[in-house]
Parts: sequence; C-alpha cells; structure tokens
Amino acid sequence: MIINWTKIAEEIYTQLKNDIKSFKSKPSLWAILVWNNPSSLRYIKQKEKWAKEIWINFILKKIPENIKERDLYNIVKEFNDDININWYIVQLPLPPHIDSQKIINNIHPKKDVDGFHPNNMWKVLLWDKNWFVPCTPAGIIEILEKEEIKVEWKKVCVIWRSNIVWKPMVSLLINMWATVIACNSKTKDLDKHTSSADVVIVAAWNPWLLKVNMIKYWAVIIDVWFTVIDDIIYWDADTKLIDLVWNKITPVPGWVWSLTVAMLMKNTIKAYKIQNK
Amino acid sequence: MIINWTKIAEEIYTQLKNDIKSFKSKPSLWAILVWNNPSSLRYIKQKEKWAKEIWINFILKKIPENIKERDLYNIVKEFNDDININWYIVQLPLPPHIDSQKIINNIHPKKDVDGFHPNNMWKVLLWDKNWFVPCTPAGIIEILEKEEIKVEWKKVCVIWRSNIVWKPMVSLLINMWATVIACNSKTKDLDKHTSSADVVIVAAWNPWLLKVNMIKYWAVIIDVWFTVIDDIIYWDADTKLIDLVWNKITPVPGWVWSLTVAMLMKNTIKAYKIQNK
Repeated sequence: MIINWTKIAEEIYTQLKNDIKSFKSKPSLWAILVWNNPSSLRYIKQKEKWAKEIWINFILKKIPENIKERDLYNIVKEFNDDININWYIVQLPLPPHIDSQKIINNIHPKKDVDGFHPNNMWKVLLWDKNWFVPCTPAGIIEILEKEEIKVEWKKVCVIWRSNIVWKPMVSLLINMWATVIACNSKTKDLDKHTSSADVVIVAAWNPWLLKVNMIKYWAVIIDVWFTVIDDIIYWDADTKLIDLVWNKITPVPGWVWSLTVAMLMKNTIKAYKIQNK
Repeated sequence: MIINWTKIAEEIYTQLKNDIKSFKSKPSLWAILVWNNPSSLRYIKQKEKWAKEIWINFILKKIPENIKERDLYNIVKEFNDDININWYIVQLPLPPHIDSQKIINNIHPKKDVDGFHPNNMWKVLLWDKNWFVPCTPAGIIEILEKEEIKVEWKKVCVIWRSNIVWKPMVSLLINMWATVIACNSKTKDLDKHTSSADVVIVAAWNPWLLKVNMIKYWAVIIDVWFTVIDDIIYWDADTKLIDLVWNKITPVPGWVWSLTVAMLMKNTIKAYKIQNK
C-alpha cells in the first residue's frame, strides 16, 4: 500500500496558505545558489514553484560556480547582517572546492530555515520544537504523524549514517521514544534488523537492498532515495514491496522532493511567526 | 572479568603528566560551583584532586545556591570575557530554579572543556576530533579503545536517552561504524536486543536490570551508573555478571567518576594545546 504523500503535502500547503492569509505582510524566502548542477537546479525550481504557489516571495541569488570559499563566506555574512533578509537557505551541494560545513556554520542560526546550523541541529536533539528541523527528517516525521504511525514502544530501523539527515533522524526518533536501530554498510545480518522492525527508513543508495523477505508483516517502509543506473531508477526497496497489501511504503522519487520542499515552506512560515510575534 | 579501569585511568594521567612537562606554563582549570549538594561536592573534590595531582591549577568559584538565573548568566559572561580564564566548567546539576541548558548555551564554546555547548555537541556528531567530547561518553570510548574492543561490524546496545550523555554516545558509536540500537524504558523485549549485542552500555538507573540470561557470551558490559536504595548500591547490571569469566564488565561506581574526571583533564590539556599552538 503506497503512502499518499501528495495528500500529505496538500494538507501542509493548505494549512500554510491559511496561516499566510492572516499575516500582515507577504513573507519572503531568500536562496543562494552556487552550483548549477541538474540536481540543485531541480530542487531550486521546486522551491520557487511552491513558494509562489502559497504566496511567498522567492528571491534567488545566483553566484558564479568558481567563487572562492572566502567570497561565499562574505556573501553569507552580508545575508546575516542585512536586516531586510529575514531568513535564507544555501542550496546544497556546493562545488567540491568549497567546504559546505564551514559555510553552514556561518549562517545565522535564526535565519537558517534549512535547520543545518549546529545550534539548530542541537535543538533538534533537545527536542526543542520551536526551532527548525532539517527538512528531510521533518518530512519523515510528518508522514509518521499524518499516517498515525506511533513509534513509541516500536522498533525503527534506519539505514545509513549521514550527518545532516540520519543523525538528526535518529535523535528525533529517540525523542519520540522509539527503539532505534541505526544500521550502515558495515552492519552484519542486516536482514535480521530489518525483519524485526516496525518501521524501516532507508537511504542507502543501494539498488533493491530491501527485499520482501527482509520485511515483517505490516511494516512501514520509508524509502528516501534512489540510484540511477543506465537511465533506470532503482529504489532502495525492491519494487515487489509496492505490490504487497500488508505494508505501507513511500514512493520514490516523488515524496522526498515534495515533502522536503513542503517542510522548507513550513520552516519559513515558522520563522515568520517567530520574528513577528 | 572486570575491566581494569584504574589501569586505564593511570595510563591517561601518565600521558597527560608527560604532556604538561613540555608546556611553557602551568595550565589552569576554572570551575563554577553553585549547588553544594553531596554529589556535586564529591565530583568537584575529585576534579580538584586530580588536577593538582597532574600539575594543573584548579580554581574554584563558589556561588551562593540562591543566585538568580540572570546573575549566574552574568558570571558566565564575565568568565567568557575574561582573557585570563582560558576555559572553565559549570558543575552540574544546577539548583532546580535555574535552567541548566540556558546556562550551558552561554558558555563560550572554545572555553567549554565539558563539551556541553551545542556547538561542541554538534562537532561530536560530525566526528570532529579537534574539539571536546563530553566526558562520560569520552570515557566510554576510551575504555573501548584501550581494551581493543572494535565496534565496527558489531552491534552495540545503549540503554537510556538523555541529552548530554546518550545522544552524543549514540552519534559517536555511529561514527565508529557500529550498528547501534538505542533502547529506553518503552522498549519492548529489551532482552532480545541486549542478548544479541556485542557491547551493552547501560545507564538506566534500574537495579539489576541486566540479568545473566540477557547477555550473550563474550559480550562487553559497560555499566555507567547505579541506584542507592536503603544505603545499598544497586548497579544496573546484576552482580552475578561480575563473576562470569566469559564477559568483560566495568565496575560501578568506581570507573565513571574516575574516567569522567580523567577525560575532563584530557579535554583541559587539549584546550591548552589548541590555544597555545
């Protein structure tokens, strides 16, 4: 059974549109785009589309790809100091010659609607809901909440170990009283862990890693990302899992983009409320 | 088999003494003590004892217990601004009328040898070894390293979910490529998780929670804390586990205090090296 993420996204946008109607001014969202690679461009376009759709100004600053790290740092500093820029994002990934973490660390935490600054990350760990949860984990939590999937007393298996997605994800689940098992490419007997889990969240970039016999009945599968080989898209979950009636699964690539973008808009509206209360 | 933590602590202190011999000046460690409860006093005395032992000045600032949060905040600010105070700790717990997290957030990250500031916590998550790892998780990592217990390809079960100990602990283990299962008081079938784990780290404050039949052969048990009921000390691990020949176990209360204090001294020396390089 496929989780209806379009319905979830629609509900979020309807709520946000209602919120915005009551605002005194039209909110804006600023974005810095450095690298014109197809993936970044696609993301930025989605963000622009949805911002406009719900009546948020979207202001994009394009920077030449060959910018020096120091100069990008200075632009970030200008954005921090500019009282007209209330909050902004720096579209990731950045070109390889720039240290992304260094740039992220210099975004002012109160302007960081992506929730990537250490202070905001730490607030996620502390379960401080007044701040910005990074958008992909936030989207996953939104799915769990909207689908009424309780993780308390449950076992959740998360596969992979990146900094800006998985570590906050694990912390959020721990905060929600889940028993969390964090697996990675050096996990022995992965099937034992997945097959005893009530919820499996996977972003392994490993084609069809998750097979039907690795999942227990009525498990929820949240498949976050996919791999493209010879123009064919492979999910981390075997496509056979979609046809089963006894589980719940998210489709990729659809939901990640959609809900991640929706959560960015939600963070933007949250930022507006914090700054205007 | 009991893990020889005194030997581990001795090795750390020997190393630190050697480091200090090569320093141009005698390092100092400043501490703010607000609450005179027995547990805080015991800790502070241990810290003072060991600092002196290895030739670190220990400078204690005692603050009246009834200090207002605002005034304590101002003292922290003075400590941050004072160029003669290179780094310091605020002894926890603080009295109930003070929001500890708020105080911690205001310690300058570069002076925070306890590693509790959000920026330092986040660096732990990023596995940035140039910064300060909170002392209890750091002590646990030290045990694993000194006892040559590799967690890569292994399953580590951690029980409990506090912010300043367990969440960084889980992140550190994930960084070390362990498969980590984070359990809490709402974990179903805890015995299944513990009995399949190669390493069990427990701080549940739950007398004899961990029984012999919950542990697999050759497992390593790191028992972090204990409960006192009617003057009797109960560990989280059943005392029967100590007599077994096939596992490795840390004794409580001994090691926690000792290694946590040793790691504070290690962080202090690290801070000295960073500031004097």
